[in-house]
Amino acid sequence: MNGLSIDMVMLQIFALFLLAKVAGLVCERFGVSSVIGEIFAGIIIGNTILFQWLSLDIDLGLFEVLAELGVIFLLFSVGLETPFSELRKVGRTATLVAVLGVILPFLAGFAMFMAIDNQLNEALFIGAAMVATSVGITARVISDMKVTRALESRIIIGAAVIDDVLGMIVLAIVMGISAGSSGGLLDIVLVSAEAILFVVLVILLGSILLPKMRRKYAERRGPAEPAQCGDRKRLALSPLPFAIIVCLGLSFLASYAGLAAIIGAFLAGMVFAEFKDKWPCEKDFHPINEFLVPFFFIHVGLLVNIASFAEVIVLAVILTLLAIATKWIGCGLGARSMGRASANIVGIGMVPRGEVGIIIASIGLTMGAITDSLFAIVVFMSMATTIVAPFLLTWAFRRKMDSDGTCGVMETLSP
Amino acid sequence: MNGLSIDMVMLQIFALFLLAKVAGLVCERFGVSSVIGEIFAGIIIGNTILFQWLSLDIDLGLFEVLAELGVIFLLFSVGLETPFSELRKVGRTATLVAVLGVILPFLAGFAMFMAIDNQLNEALFIGAAMVATSVGITARVISDMKVTRALESRIIIGAAVIDDVLGMIVLAIVMGISAGSSGGLLDIVLVSAEAILFVVLVILLGSILLPKMRRKYAERRGPAEPAQCGDRKRLALSPLPFAIIVCLGLSFLASYAGLAAIIGAFLAGMVFAEFKDKWPCEKDFHPINEFLVPFFFIHVGLLVNIASFAEVIVLAVILTLLAIATKWIGCGLGARSMGRASANIVGIGMVPRGEVGIIIASIGLTMGAITDSLFAIVVFMSMATTIVAPFLLTWAFRRKMDSDGTCGVMETLSP
Repeated sequence: MNGLSIDMVMLQIFALFLLAKVAGLVCERFGVSSVIGEIFAGIIIGNTILFQWLSLDIDLGLFEVLAELGVIFLLFSVGLETPFSELRKVGRTATLVAVLGVILPFLAGFAMFMAIDNQLNEALFIGAAMVATSVGITARVISDMKVTRALESRIIIGAAVIDDVLGMIVLAIVMGISAGSSGGLLDIVLVSAEAILFVVLVILLGSILLPKMRRKYAERRGPAEPAQCGDRKRLALSPLPFAIIVCLGLSFLASYAGLAAIIGAFLAGMVFAEFKDKWPCEKDFHPINEFLVPFFFIHVGLLVNIASFAEVIVLAVILTLLAIATKWIGCGLGARSMGRASANIVGIGMVPRGEVGIIIASIGLTMGAITDSLFAIVVFMSMATTIVAPFLLTWAFRRKMDSDGTCGVMETLSP
Repeated sequence: MNGLSIDMVMLQIFALFLLAKVAGLVCERFGVSSVIGEIFAGIIIGNTILFQWLSLDIDLGLFEVLAELGVIFLLFSVGLETPFSELRKVGRTATLVAVLGVILPFLAGFAMFMAIDNQLNEALFIGAAMVATSVGITARVISDMKVTRALESRIIIGAAVIDDVLGMIVLAIVMGISAGSSGGLLDIVLVSAEAILFVVLVILLGSILLPKMRRKYAERRGPAEPAQCGDRKRLALSPLPFAIIVCLGLSFLASYAGLAAIIGAFLAGMVFAEFKDKWPCEKDFHPINEFLVPFFFIHVGLLVNIASFAEVIVLAVILTLLAIATKWIGCGLGARSMGRASANIVGIGMVPRGEVGIIIASIGLTMGAITDSLFAIVVFMSMATTIVAPFLLTWAFRRKMDSDGTCGVMETLSP
């Protein structure tokens, strides 16, 4: 890269990875998601002399690329947990939870920043970042609490899955409007239609074309023959390189179509999720993500300027409270048919924004739609909701236990 | 990077990975190592208009980094297959095979290029590149032929393991002399001593310090307790991030000490090989390597200038014949106690240079010790020995079968 020796670059990679993993591990020991630790590591590196020591001030280009690769593979993995066939099974309540949990936070974020400085693009991106629910973190909290089989848990996971897809569509629309920037109603409708078309097209093609290819391949391969000496081993098409190619290809296609690359990666993951039984690649993506994803979060941290953040901390706290309240109320309303205590649990379960809110904000930052300090606000909001959610969720589950004891997890929840 | 948008960079990554994998797959279908295909993909991209189309002429820096990461993780994996405890078990014959198989090719390559243009550094690097035997490719050929249990196979694998370690030491010495460049006998001795010291030190520390850390960790972890609700899952220290950190750390340490980064990576792999039972990370490195390693070989291909190669093709053929003959004779001599036919098999089994010869040449290229066209010669020699070895090996095994039929693999080798 720009004048840095390869040895220096390797030292940067080593140091950043080491710090991210150590910080992640420390956070996990204290029961906080390792993502938080990795972002903190980035913030510390980015705002101290370490930044100069590691020559990161000279060229961050490499880490931008590693971060992009990391987030693309991460969203592919999220997509892998979102098979289209599951989506259809989710049911009315979860759908209602997801839809209300998207609309309310979006409107709140959008309205707040329209009121503050009346910039459409900025308000749109903040709204979109408020929409996200991190399936990963939600599922993790639930499995950590050993309440996976509770009805509330299934509703939360189902709603989070739909939320992911809706979030991608919202992002696509926001990016379209932001790039077009005219903001006329017709434009918004057209851009939205294009975004939805892309998503629907990929899902349809991925569910029709891919199974065909698979059948063809299975036929050509034929039944296993006894190996002959001197023969080379017949090479089965390993799913991993294929999955990487599809993931990178769809990411490029999405960004070529003016959408975010991660939307393509997410859809690629959704398509592969349909073939999990025949082409398992979850386990293979895990190590790749373990290596690459920390570079995304550390890069996020590097982009956070503490000095500029100090000026906007009040705004950040307000946005965080708004983020918690709107998800809680929106999703709670969606689940009101389940009764007050259960609706409470579902609402809280949808609160953590995790990585997705940050990813959306980082796209806004790259597009110039939001400023450094607004980016820092979203990072703060995402981290805060993620840290606070497990505590709230534990409280909500306990509260329900105390009032009716029907959840079947009493014995594990009481001390 | 230098003015390239992140979308363009992602397209480059996608295109290079796609072409490498397709070319690798085509080669494997024809019974040739996929490495050959990946290098070919790089040569084709590097010598056609594709290079400009993909804007690779603007900045190759990223692919240099990905290639370096790939080769570091690759050498870690090779090290993983080289536990120190195995080394001690290898026995006299395999040691003799390895030592003679290092000395003869080195002297041949060194003498040839000293005779041609009397440049010490150049001749040293060519000699070092002649030394390598690719454990991976040798083992692959043997397992493809289903003769893993034959005595010859075990000698070959054992010798290849020792050859790897010797190759790293030779590389370290060559780099030291080349950097110092005074060439006095005392200098050579000192540099060699330093290189050997580093290797020995890492092996000793890795076999004493690491087991201690492991025991400490096992104690602290204690017996598994029944999980309590609200408690977070106790996080077991996953071996993968730890392995990556040690691998990158030792690589940096090695290059800091003036050795090649890959020597550190290889030693890190050797250390982890000792703990394969408790800290398995082979399977986790496999997907990472599947993603990153192709970038190394494609980068090698990109560095090959066909125009400059055309001028030196005669030299390349001579060096290749020399490479085959010296390994064959050297290793055959080492194995002469096994009888003529078996010595023949062992000699041929050690012929393929695979990636290691190329890696050494690429270090020489980076250090400015060898020219573009010399690099192309070594790539040609490595590829040619790798392509030719399986055919020769099949012939040698059949020849032995025909003459005595004692190898126990008659039924699988005859048609």
